[in-house]
Amino acid sequence: MATLGLVGLGKMGGNMRTRIRNAGHTVVGYDRNPDLADVHSLQEMVDALPSPKIVWLMVPAGDPTLSTIMELGDLLGEGDVVIDGGNSKYTDDAENAAYLATKGIGFVDCGTSGGVWGLQNGYALMFGGSDADVAKVQWAFDALKPADTTDGCVHAGRTPGAGHFAKMVHNGIEYAMMQAYAEGWELLDKVDIVENVPEVFASWRTGTVVRSWLLDLLVDQLHADEHLDKIAGYAEDSGEGRWTVEAAIDNAVPMPAISASLFARFSSRQDDSPAMKAIAAMRNGFGGHAVRSE
Amino acid sequence: MATLGLVGLGKMGGNMRTRIRNAGHTVVGYDRNPDLADVHSLQEMVDALPSPKIVWLMVPAGDPTLSTIMELGDLLGEGDVVIDGGNSKYTDDAENAAYLATKGIGFVDCGTSGGVWGLQNGYALMFGGSDADVAKVQWAFDALKPADTTDGCVHAGRTPGAGHFAKMVHNGIEYAMMQAYAEGWELLDKVDIVENVPEVFASWRTGTVVRSWLLDLLVDQLHADEHLDKIAGYAEDSGEGRWTVEAAIDNAVPMPAISASLFARFSSRQDDSPAMKAIAAMRNGFGGHAVRSE
Amino acid sequence: MATLGLVGLGKMGGNMRTRIRNAGHTVVGYDRNPDLADVHSLQEMVDALPSPKIVWLMVPAGDPTLSTIMELGDLLGEGDVVIDGGNSKYTDDAENAAYLATKGIGFVDCGTSGGVWGLQNGYALMFGGSDADVAKVQWAFDALKPADTTDGCVHAGRTPGAGHFAKMVHNGIEYAMMQAYAEGWELLDKVDIVENVPEVFASWRTGTVVRSWLLDLLVDQLHADEHLDKIAGYAEDSGEGRWTVEAAIDNAVPMPAISASLFARFSSRQDDSPAMKAIAAMRNGFGGHAVRSE
Amino acid sequence: MATLGLVGLGKMGGNMRTRIRNAGHTVVGYDRNPDLADVHSLQEMVDALPSPKIVWLMVPAGDPTLSTIMELGDLLGEGDVVIDGGNSKYTDDAENAAYLATKGIGFVDCGTSGGVWGLQNGYALMFGGSDADVAKVQWAFDALKPADTTDGCVHAGRTPGAGHFAKMVHNGIEYAMMQAYAEGWELLDKVDIVENVPEVFASWRTGTVVRSWLLDLLVDQLHADEHLDKIAGYAEDSGEGRWTVEAAIDNAVPMPAISASLFARFSSRQDDSPAMKAIAAMRNGFGGHAVRSE
Repeated sequence: MATLGLVGLGKMGGNMRTRIRNAGHTVVGYDRNPDLADVHSLQEMVDALPSPKIVWLMVPAGDPTLSTIMELGDLLGEGDVVIDGGNSKYTDDAENAAYLATKGIGFVDCGTSGGVWGLQNGYALMFGGSDADVAKVQWAFDALKPADTTDGCVHAGRTPGAGHFAKMVHNGIEYAMMQAYAEGWELLDKVDIVENVPEVFASWRTGTVVRSWLLDLLVDQLHADEHLDKIAGYAEDSGEGRWTVEAAIDNAVPMPAISASLFARFSSRQDDSPAMKAIAAMRNGFGGHAVRSE
Repeated sequence: MATLGLVGLGKMGGNMRTRIRNAGHTVVGYDRNPDLADVHSLQEMVDALPSPKIVWLMVPAGDPTLSTIMELGDLLGEGDVVIDGGNSKYTDDAENAAYLATKGIGFVDCGTSGGVWGLQNGYALMFGGSDADVAKVQWAFDALKPADTTDGCVHAGRTPGAGHFAKMVHNGIEYAMMQAYAEGWELLDKVDIVENVPEVFASWRTGTVVRSWLLDLLVDQLHADEHLDKIAGYAEDSGEGRWTVEAAIDNAVPMPAISASLFARFSSRQDDSPAMKAIAAMRNGFGGHAVRSE
Repeated sequence: MATLGLVGLGKMGGNMRTRIRNAGHTVVGYDRNPDLADVHSLQEMVDALPSPKIVWLMVPAGDPTLSTIMELGDLLGEGDVVIDGGNSKYTDDAENAAYLATKGIGFVDCGTSGGVWGLQNGYALMFGGSDADVAKVQWAFDALKPADTTDGCVHAGRTPGAGHFAKMVHNGIEYAMMQAYAEGWELLDKVDIVENVPEVFASWRTGTVVRSWLLDLLVDQLHADEHLDKIAGYAEDSGEGRWTVEAAIDNAVPMPAISASLFARFSSRQDDSPAMKAIAAMRNGFGGHAVRSE
Repeated sequence: MATLGLVGLGKMGGNMRTRIRNAGHTVVGYDRNPDLADVHSLQEMVDALPSPKIVWLMVPAGDPTLSTIMELGDLLGEGDVVIDGGNSKYTDDAENAAYLATKGIGFVDCGTSGGVWGLQNGYALMFGGSDADVAKVQWAFDALKPADTTDGCVHAGRTPGAGHFAKMVHNGIEYAMMQAYAEGWELLDKVDIVENVPEVFASWRTGTVVRSWLLDLLVDQLHADEHLDKIAGYAEDSGEGRWTVEAAIDNAVPMPAISASLFARFSSRQDDSPAMKAIAAMRNGFGGHAVRSE
């Protein structure tokens, strides 16, 4: 049995702590919120770990992750390993790995999928890093991954960022899959010919080409609220979708469906479309088409 | 000088009557609204025309055009010609031409562009029909088209529908051109780096690759309302954009930009996006992401 | 145990005959290819059926289905039922149902999903028709559908075409789901950072948001041919994707991802893109950019 | 009359030198290619300029521009001004301006449009920089811009990058406008109903909503090669289109048409679509659809 330092004990990190403990390991968890934390500081957490010290971060991407890594660089030492299990951009990983390497500290980046279901079903893990660093933390991956399968856990590459890159593309695919169901549902729900749309979606769960876990989730939601009347048509995006399209552009990869899905989310968050104001303005200019006033 | 029967004297038809009269011809105009009409009935209009009788329709596409043609089939005869100058779908033209042909009546379909500017600048005309039918009505085209140019007037083909097909594609192109400016404007207006967006657009009117009449119109609107605050982001579509995409699908022609422009209009008319409700529902299902309530 | 007349014994129809027979029923199969058929004519097939006679069509959509229904209209009678289980357009169903109704013959339209896996796993069935007609053929649905589940079989609506409409949307969703995986795979395969792309896809089969049957299939293919070197980037489309987008346009439903997926298939079948010829021509015109000659 | 140092004398820079000289000014041009250059080194060029020394760069974006600016930082001094008139990314401008500011050297970024037509018609200029720096170089803008209009020349903002940002969006708009014409042309050219497609496009040059300079260029090309048989469907992209979409993503601006236009160019450069290989693989997996072999 091993011991893990875990930084970030929100909804996701807290459940991961539980799953690792359920596997028989020790977790020393730190969070800025003392109500969630096992220890009062990163220093205290690090002091509680045996060598090689293994620290897993579940901290928001960007500055929070960066500053935590900077601080750990001063607390950890030769042979220790930091795992960034958050949603960092893959380009951040190279910088973080290089910084920690100057201190002799290893680095593994890990894209973590699982949401609220991970505690029960296991987390899907895509990680990048050297074979040596991965070997030191494999026990934690084994505790977190889904049981009874070789799936759900992959060493994506030895270059820092390989794991987050794989997870990023996973999320890009997820965007377009969700958009696929959403467009189909809108059409079915709008046209009168199909009488019981939730039952049609439910029927698709077996024997069809479109069966998937996302379909299962959508069916549950439709059974609770047939026309989704209680839910606003508003969707956030978490960054990975944007980065996926940016990576596609950098590499001259056509990505029409995933980008369309991303743009649909952007549109959903606009009360009024500025672009459509311009369209209305031009139509008024050439055709005298009446515009709607704000 | 010649005489034209003109059916439909709305904003567009009324201006066309004026332009043809300005060219020295006689127009006998009929409209269901007696305040606009020169005569009280189609019968009276037809009676006032010399042979071969030439009747130009500016009637809403679909049933109104169809029923007017049915009626004219009984009033006109061998050698007369009907011009459908409205926004009919090109597939309607073949049927209308075939019906009139059973009576010996010729048929020319004509896509008419010009909007509120046509009276002054002339109308762009794209027409389809036999050489013989076109020859009988060329004088009317000459009166309506822009002066001092061979542009603005084209015999697109001899098959009924050629003119409306050309006009339909014109409008499809127009949709995506407008969307191009609109997307660029939204980005420029949103980002702070450019201080005077209307002046940037104005500057583009000379020497750039994007100079066009649509740009001129947009500049006028931006000069009147810098951020288009008074205009809602809401755009109707008139049918031609839909038919263009449908024709593309029928012919396996990829049409990503024009279809995106059409869909952006559809979205602009939704208070809330049903598809995005489904996206929000699925995100809630797998990640516990909060949804916004209606 | 009951008896079914089955017309069309190709790959799909042949397997369906086997599955129905495996359920203990009798199938009298007719096909224009005598090597596949149990009887020599539609007449002989109909004669072999007890009343009410139930005939299932698995015939190509459009004219072949139409002509078969016309012929069956003369062979069947009051109280018999025809099931169109092929890929007919939903708008054809209303016409076919109306024609058969003049003879007192019932009609059920059924979208059938299952491909080469249906014989073993069961077929997913989405059908439309009156409760009375459906009741007469439910035994056949029960034989064909997946076992041990209430999924895979749904009475989508009582209007003719409800089943084919549901199946059409299913296929539209399928197009965009496939496009989602395809875009993600292209990016992962092109960028060097991830070393073993098939293993990443394989890992996604458990615990991730993108797990699905389509993913399972893609993993099998990637395990056989890591970079898909042996497969050309060429995809047919079967009609349902086109109809889905057309139905969306008819109903003003934005459908950016599914339409992008359809257009990507169109593009895949072009040796050279005409649109891109026009782009290259314009670039040459304004910038002197060299064009590639054919 | 004033004197300008001009670095980069390719097709674009060379014509700009001529236009400035035609306006009566002196240009000292440097290029790495001695056949094009007036002087043998940047040093020699700088020595030949009166103070305040004004240097205009027409150097490829990225490293070449960066290294030239580094070198000029050592050659120029307090009160001199560098204009980057190339196609630099707007985010580079802030860094370059900050570096030069440490030496007291001013910086103006200028997006330059005009292509092969600029020498004759003038260049459209969009520039960013402080009022003081712009005042020092306004004479050069006046020489380059189109004559007899206040258009074609705009001080987009005082933040470094404002000019290149405006030019970048101009090019993004250009991409989608070109795509609009290209999609429409492909449809018209493919369908038989319109007999003379070049004449239809030519007719649109007057009186229509789609009239533009790009249309004029396309008509010239179609008159030379009706079906564009001699041109391959292959289009490069120069960076600004990519950056436009990236800026849209950074700012949550939906940009479906411009991104579709960018992706169409990416696709045009692929002999075979990897994504479509994956589609074909999945179709083979579920339906036994034959794949085309490479």
